[in-house]
Order: sequence, then structure tokens, then C-alpha cells
Amino acid sequence: MFIYLEPQRRKIPCGSELTLLAALQRQPNFAPPSLCGGEGSCGKCKIQILAGQVSELTEPERQLLTADELATGTRLACQTFPLESLTIRLVDGNSVSAEYKTSLAMELDQVAVEPVSQKKYLRLSPPAINDQTADLERIYQALKEHQLAAEDIAPRLLPDLPRLVRKADWQLTATLRRRCLVDLEAGDTAGEHYGVAFDLGTTTVAAYLVDLATGRLLGQDARTNPQVTFGEDLMSRIDRAHQGELVELQQAAVACLNELLARLLADHGIPARYVQEATAVGNTCMQSLLLGIDPYYAGVAPFTPALQVVPELPAAWLGLQIAPEGRMHLPPVIAGFVGSDAVADLLALDFDRPQPPHLLLDLGTNAEMALSVEGRMLACSAAAGPAFEGARISCGMRAAPGAIDRAVFAQNSLQCHTIDEQPARGIAGTGLISVAAALKRAGLLNRRGGLRRGELPTGLLAPDDRGIVLVPAERTAGGEPLVLTWKDLGEELVIARAAIRSGIEILLAEAGLSVDELARISIAGAFGSFLDIDDALAIGLLPPIPAERISGVGNAAGLGAIKILLAAGQRERARRLAEQTSHVELSGYPRFNRIFARHMTF
Amino acid sequence: MFIYLEPQRRKIPCGSELTLLAALQRQPNFAPPSLCGGEGSCGKCKIQILAGQVSELTEPERQLLTADELATGTRLACQTFPLESLTIRLVDGNSVSAEYKTSLAMELDQVAVEPVSQKKYLRLSPPAINDQTADLERIYQALKEHQLAAEDIAPRLLPDLPRLVRKADWQLTATLRRRCLVDLEAGDTAGEHYGVAFDLGTTTVAAYLVDLATGRLLGQDARTNPQVTFGEDLMSRIDRAHQGELVELQQAAVACLNELLARLLADHGIPARYVQEATAVGNTCMQSLLLGIDPYYAGVAPFTPALQVVPELPAAWLGLQIAPEGRMHLPPVIAGFVGSDAVADLLALDFDRPQPPHLLLDLGTNAEMALSVEGRMLACSAAAGPAFEGARISCGMRAAPGAIDRAVFAQNSLQCHTIDEQPARGIAGTGLISVAAALKRAGLLNRRGGLRRGELPTGLLAPDDRGIVLVPAERTAGGEPLVLTWKDLGEELVIARAAIRSGIEILLAEAGLSVDELARISIAGAFGSFLDIDDALAIGLLPPIPAERISGVGNAAGLGAIKILLAAGQRERARRLAEQTSHVELSGYPRFNRIFARHMTF
Repeated sequence: MFIYLEPQRRKIPCGSELTLLAALQRQPNFAPPSLCGGEGSCGKCKIQILAGQVSELTEPERQLLTADELATGTRLACQTFPLESLTIRLVDGNSVSAEYKTSLAMELDQVAVEPVSQKKYLRLSPPAINDQTADLERIYQALKEHQLAAEDIAPRLLPDLPRLVRKADWQLTATLRRRCLVDLEAGDTAGEHYGVAFDLGTTTVAAYLVDLATGRLLGQDARTNPQVTFGEDLMSRIDRAHQGELVELQQAAVACLNELLARLLADHGIPARYVQEATAVGNTCMQSLLLGIDPYYAGVAPFTPALQVVPELPAAWLGLQIAPEGRMHLPPVIAGFVGSDAVADLLALDFDRPQPPHLLLDLGTNAEMALSVEGRMLACSAAAGPAFEGARISCGMRAAPGAIDRAVFAQNSLQCHTIDEQPARGIAGTGLISVAAALKRAGLLNRRGGLRRGELPTGLLAPDDRGIVLVPAERTAGGEPLVLTWKDLGEELVIARAAIRSGIEILLAEAGLSVDELARISIAGAFGSFLDIDDALAIGLLPPIPAERISGVGNAAGLGAIKILLAAGQRERARRLAEQTSHVELSGYPRFNRIFARHMTF
Repeated sequence: MFIYLEPQRRKIPCGSELTLLAALQRQPNFAPPSLCGGEGSCGKCKIQILAGQVSELTEPERQLLTADELATGTRLACQTFPLESLTIRLVDGNSVSAEYKTSLAMELDQVAVEPVSQKKYLRLSPPAINDQTADLERIYQALKEHQLAAEDIAPRLLPDLPRLVRKADWQLTATLRRRCLVDLEAGDTAGEHYGVAFDLGTTTVAAYLVDLATGRLLGQDARTNPQVTFGEDLMSRIDRAHQGELVELQQAAVACLNELLARLLADHGIPARYVQEATAVGNTCMQSLLLGIDPYYAGVAPFTPALQVVPELPAAWLGLQIAPEGRMHLPPVIAGFVGSDAVADLLALDFDRPQPPHLLLDLGTNAEMALSVEGRMLACSAAAGPAFEGARISCGMRAAPGAIDRAVFAQNSLQCHTIDEQPARGIAGTGLISVAAALKRAGLLNRRGGLRRGELPTGLLAPDDRGIVLVPAERTAGGEPLVLTWKDLGEELVIARAAIRSGIEILLAEAGLSVDELARISIAGAFGSFLDIDDALAIGLLPPIPAERISGVGNAAGLGAIKILLAAGQRERARRLAEQTSHVELSGYPRFNRIFARHMTF
């Protein structure tokens, strides 16, 4: 029996004793994402059956698949056994991918193309008795203008050199990285030169495949960071790494990058050996884990990263499956909780150019923020927690179909909208802010973020007094009402908000600025693109400045990573930028507790 | 059962079913040399039994061991089985080693000590909340004067960095190579810094262990190149490599270097991880084989080497067992048959300094020669063949005990002297020249190098008319007379001589010099040290200049290799020297055949 995969045209062996997920996982490039390890609880491993008989629907599938999905033959690969050979299609169940797709692109055609490596087609004259120049020196002569240091050749190229040049009839393509000869290929392959940029987020990993010859973005993809099985938040991963699972976390990160890249390469029919350059941005902990470094000491006081500036890494050392002499560049980090993703943000937003006061907020799993004012740069991180990604919120979830993304309060009732207008399955970060803003506008929130319970319409109160009902049972996917607890609103959201506002206040104070003087606030990340600015202002998540000065800027870190991939000069720039940014350590800030307490009230 | 090895104090398991050689070969560092693969024919694997019972003497041992050796318990390890646990001592059966020991040393205290790597002990201040400098950047700060590029750290050091600096309580020793941080060790190990120089000859491989902190030569050792089992001469190894045994030849070379180094390190109690630098000189073919490069194209017209300037090689890539980030430096070659051993010779002899006409001869397996005159350098190689190393001569052998090393003709008979005055086993290169010179002086050689058979004393003629008897049966080790054939004298020696003299003549012609103008001839290699200059002049092996202008200079290539090991400046110098030396290709030289023919006569 086989699984025929469309549109990839792959034929994968399977058997009736194995789930489709298990069969597909033997071909890592085509395995659908799975967070729960095949237990039928995450709902990520969706596939569509185009032809062939499979086992019957299971209870988890009935809960996790929508009626539309069921009608089009969508199944969970972990629940489904083949009864005969099948034709299937992978379903991109990770809607974050789509968000990334919409949130980049904007500025890419302005990016300078001067990659650290280049390819050059050479036609050499063959040796003769009156021209005994050695094979390698003959190549160096043809590359004279590049001023190679004569020693700078990858040793791997040496053993095959005499055979290769003769087989190629002295016509070959050299790949140079800076002043070093890193690859030799027979014939003219100068046009086949690619790079990949990764945005290695705590929750989501995105990959961008770029043509280094033209600077064109060929494709992009994203998936859930497989490290989430070690813990959704940073601190639990740091613990697991420090307790002995560092190697597993490192391997999970590298496997994820390899899988994303392999998928992109397969889609474009590009062999991995033509990918010479890679870059990855991420927070300091993600970077440490990728390098196999215990992130513990960056996570506890005095929060010291292992290193700020990372050497260029041989991809082979890292386990990244690109060209044999390919390199991975990791831009510098600023501090233990201000990573290279923030550096990439700042680079994409030109924070190093003199400008009126400009604030960046990157509300990922952690809240990183930075201020640029007339060439001076400051940055800090606030322990806002992952509330905006759905964690710690009782019915929180990521921004996927069925997640509540906005709400209004009208006619004494709360009306929630879900992504793709699917039956409600939980609440996304933007939804949480929108619900709080709706309740605030209706005068139902007290100063401390708690609800004025006495004034709530009775229909809003959950029967067991846990909190308020967002969506009644009959309109949810699970058949149970979706409830936002008193703690979700009065504690998690309030703390996250206070952390962010404290960070902003301290950055402004360090720069000697008042809130009014802020000319611009940029909110990076997918979250920023979907956030309703008025809602955020309504609940005081953002400081009170005119809404038109505030905008979502999409995945600025991804854009910054691509810029860094595409031009050696941008790497230098990222390094200077990290060096010149003053890090403000909030936990060491004298009046931090007082400031934080003040922002606990609305 | 065990073999107790003295003085190394090693305990090696053995059994009565295994020869001592087989048991010892399981511990490669302590295996005695063996050329014949344990067949009892090379006589190399001598060991001395100090205590314990072993199997009885075999016929090969009776033939290959002297009475003295037998009396002191010396046996061939390949012929001997243990009957109980033994205490043994390895016998250095390779007398070339002793020659190397005598032939170096002369100038070593004048060598500049500025190795490419250095070690530095650092005491760092630990991080604090007001000093969050990353661990690596903290180390860089302490190394500020060395102007490290922030990216130049070996990636291997990264994963363990945070743990190491804390375990070491922020006191550690950094190893720097040029501007790169290549090792970090807890505590102060700055004094433990070593290097090894190899002279990788076709026949013999020598190793020199050097203290890089002081420049002191700690020890030296030599052994037969194990590649001789693939063929004694270069061309047969080139054939074998080209026919598919390249990997085996490469591995044999690396194993030989590892074995020599391991022995030296064990003798001095130095861990391999402290050996950061290695260098090896050798002819172009030896260098190719060490790199795993097919040497075929350097061996056939137009004699093009794969490369002249070799990049610094990671020892790990090569398989050399030194420090993890240790490097192997191979000095450049000049041409297909003028290798880096010649470059090392020239460097040791200061050929790049302006001087009166100075000729170098390195009569190894091939004859390499070079001329320096007022700053101009020329070099060539002559296909003299390995006659002076005993090959192609019917009873030829290397300069080992029992080899005829000189002879006189007196009272109508030839009197031959053997090395260590052992029963005669063959004739060494110096002996061949001495015999020819003795016959020449007695007027018994004709112009073409043939013997005037009619004038020979009858006792000198071998009964079967094969040639002349050097040593009668009763004074040889084998009990058969040692005979030098007509072909040995009239063909092999004459051709070797003509090749050398042609090379010299052409070099002089290219420089516009006459023979009289030669101010100095230096003869490098062990052979040069043992050669009788008057004999060499008598048979015209050397051009007719006063004997006092001619001298043996010992293993100049070994000395050059040590200089190159010890100082970065010497590497640059070697490179310039190779670049500035004009190579004269004899096979492309217009009047070569005519010149060669002229030198065929005495």
C-alpha cells in the first residue's frame, strides 16, 4: 500500500497497522505538524483524503474538525488508518503561516543584494609543459580580482580537485565567501545560488527562501516550534535544558529548520547543495538552544548571555542541511531577554537612523521594546508573559480558525467574532484585548481590571461563578460554553499590561522624554498586524497618544533577517546596532516595583 | 596473560594463540615497525624479552637476528608466541632514526620562537547585575590587546562555555591562533603548549616534538613510511593511488604520523590535546597522498601539481590526533617533483639571502636540487631514481646495521666495511659510491662506468659471471656471497649519476655560471651526512670543485620544518621562497638528451 501525496507527487509506503501520521513521519519533509505526539488532542495533523478508503471517524476528530472540514474529506492523520492505497493532500493547519505570508513582503524590493557569498563561472586554459601552474593556483589566477588569500580554500575541496577540473574540461563555477573559495562545480551553475532566513520564535518558526543572485523572495513557510512539547513558555524550556534535555531541545530546533527548508526546496525543485547562506533570528534563549548552549545563566540573575556576537557557524557543525560549506549567521543579541529578533526588528525599522522618538513593541512570548531618539537607542524586556499568545488564559489559544479575535458589547450582551467565522474554540490575544476594551467601554471594568460583577447582565455570568460567558455552548466547537475567568481578566491581562507600560515608562524616563513626545509606536509581529489599536488604547495597553501615530508593522524580525541574509553590510549594521543599543535591566531598576504597581490600575 | 612493556609501564593483554606483534598492534602507539606484514622477512619488529617464557626460535629469526641479539633475548615479534605473561622492551630496529638524531640539532637554538598560536592565562571578574557582559565578550575584553575579531572563536567551544567559565571560577587559559580563540581550559595551563614537525619522506618519516613556549626540541623519532608496502618508489605508489588505493595510502600516511607522535607524547607524558600545531614537509607526491589527492597528474606530463600553496588544515579533518582545533601546516611545493621538503631545505640553508653561488642537493628517493646566486633561486628535480637508497641495486639496502657503507681496494682485493661492523647483508648508497670510487682509483672502471673485466683480479669475479663479489659467503649474514652485478655499476649507478650531473649543469647554465664559480655545495639528508665527498668526486657524482667547498648538512628539511613550525614569519618566508624559486623542467629542456648522454661517461 502507498500514500500518493499531491501536489508533491510523492509515493510513501504505508500499511494498515500504521496511522497516516506514522507513515508520513518516516518522510520528515512531508510530515504534517503534530504537537500532541499523535494523541488526537492538538488537531494539527490535518490531511485531506482525495481518493481511497480509510478507517472510520474517531471521537477526537468529531471534536476537532469542523463540519466543512469533514465534508471535504479532512481527517486527522494520527487518527486515521489506510484500508487501501490513498491519494491525500497535506492541509496547512497552521494559520500562523498565512499571517506571516500577509505580513512581510512590503519592503523587500528595497533590500540591497550583496550576499557574503557569490558564484562565478570560470573558463580556464588547460596546463601545458610550458605552463605547469598547479590546478588550484590556476583557479586563483582566474579569480585574481577577488584577491583571494591563497590559503583560503575549504579543505574538503582538495581531494577531488584534479579530477574535477579535468572532468569539467576546465570550465567550472567557483563559489566564494568573502575571500575564501568554498565550492567548485563543473560547468556553469552561477545562477543557482540561494539562501534561507529563519525567524525562530518561541511558538512559531518561519522560513524565507531567497534567491541570492536576484534578491527575490521565492517562498515562505511557517510551523509551530517543535520545542513546545518541552514547554510552551521560555522558562520551562530553560529548566528542561538545564535539567539535561539540552541536546533534545537543540535537535528539535535544528530538525524544525531542516524540515521547513526541505519543504521550501522541494516546492521549488532546488537541491540543498545550492543553499550557501542561512540566517536565523530569535530571542536569546532560542539562540542558545539552537547552539546547544545551556540558557540557564541568561535566565537567572544577573541574566548573563553566553555570548552576544556569534561567529559564523558551519552549517554542517550545526546539523543544518544546506551546502557542505554553507554557513549559518546568527545576528548578535542585546541581552539575556533582548534577542537577535529585536535586533532584526530595529534594523528593519531603521532604528539606527536619527529620527523623532520612535518606540518598538514586539509582543511575542516575551515583550521586547526599544526606543530610538535622534540616533540614541535603548531597549528592555518586560516579563509580560505569553498572555497574548493564549497561554495562562483559561480558554486562550493561538490566532487560528475558531479563535475569538474581536468583540463588541451591545444590547447588554457580548458579541464575539471568530477567525474564519468558525465555531468558537478559544480566545486569541487580540480577542482578549478586544473583550476587555468592550467591557471597559460599557463601564463594566473597575480600576483594577476586575469586573463590576453587580452591574453585569445576568446572561453574561457563568453559572458556576467562574467568570463571564464569551460564547454560549450552542455556538462553540466543543459544545461547552467558552468562559473567561475573573483571573484571566483581573490578573493575567492586568499584569501583562502593567509590565509593558512599566517598560515603556522606564525607557522614556531614561531618554528624558514624556509620553506626548512619542512620534511613533510600531508594533511588530503577527500580533501587531491584527491588534485593534483603539482597543489597545482603550484598556491602556499602549500609552495615551493619538492612534494615528501607532501602527502594526508585520513581521519586522523576518524582514530584518532577510536583509541580514542578503547583504554583508547589513550584518555589520546589525552588529553596530546591537553594540550601540543601551540595555536597561528592569529588574535592576531602582523604582521598578513602584512604577509597576502604578500601572496595575486602569 | 599480559605483556608488560618497559620502560613505558604498559600492560597489554595477550594470548598464546597470537604473536607478540599481533598483540602489540592492538595498541598502535606501541607496535614495533613491520614492513612485511608479519611474514618474518623484513626483520623490523625486533623486541627484547626481559622475563617470561616464549615459543622457540624460528628459521627467519635465525637468519635475521645476529648472535649478539640472540644472546640478549632479542626476538622478532611476528615469530614469537607468549607461553606466559612477559616483560619486554621494544627495540628501535630502525637505524635511520639514529641518523636523524645525529643529523639535526646543529642550529636549533637560533630558531625564532613566534608560533602561530599562543596561550594566555586570564583572571576574569564574575558578572553582576550592573555588569551583564556576556561570558564570551568578557573573555574578549581580557584579550583586548590581541585584537580578536569578535567572530573568531571555534564554534566547538560555544556549547560548554557558560559551564566552563563558572566551573573554572572565571580563571582560565585561552589559546589563540592568530586572531581566533581556539581553546579554553580551566585554570592555568599556559605552559602546556606543544607542536610537532614531520619530515614525510618516501622511505623514512621523522617526527620532532617541540615545546612551543620555549622553542626547545623535546624529542625526535623516525620510522619507515608504511606506504612502502604499496611500493618502494614514488611511481608505483602513484599508480596504486590512481588505480583506487588512494584512501589506503592516505590512511597509512596519517596513521604513521599519529603513531610517531603518540610515541613521542607517551615518552614525555604530554596529552595530545596540548599539541596545537603540526607541520609536515615532503615531496609533492607524499603531500598529495597525505591530503588524499590523486598524485597522478603531478607524475605525468605536463607534471601539474593539484596545488602549490596548501591551506592550513584542521587536524581533525586530516585525522591527525592532536588538539581538537589543532592545525596542520603544509609548506608550499615548487613543482610536481620539487616538494615542500626542498622548500624546507632552502629555508634552513637561507637560500633566500643573497650569497655566492650555492648548490643544494637532496638525494632522497628523487634527486632535488637548487641553486642560489645573489638572491636568485632556481630548482629542478632529476629522475636519479632510488639507487642511493638501495632500490634497483641487486644487493642494495638501506643504511642499517650490516650494510656496506664504504670500501677500499688494496692488495688486489676489495675490502668492505659494514655499519656497526655486523656480518654483511647488503650495500648502502654510500657503499655503492665508495666501491665504485675504489674501483675507479684502481683503474678498473672504463669510461662508461663498466668494469674492465679483463683486468679484474680473479678473486673478485663472481663464479657465475653476474658481477663482482663484494663479500665472500663466509662473512655475510645470509651465508651467500654478496655480489654487485654488472648492471648495478654500469647501468643503475651511471644513470643516477648522469641525471644528477645533468640537473646541475642545466641549473648552472640557466644562471649563467660555470662549475668553477660554485662557492658551496650542500648535500642534505642523512645520505649527505654519511657520504664520503672524495668518493663522490672520484666517480664524478659531484662536479669537480675543491672538496672543502662541499659538505653534508644533515636533515636540513627537518630543521626547516621545525623553523616553520616555530614561527609564523617562517611560514611567510617559505611561501615567498617557493614563489620566487624558478622551476626548471628538465624534461622540457631543449638540449636535455644531449647533456644527459654526455654525463653517461666518466
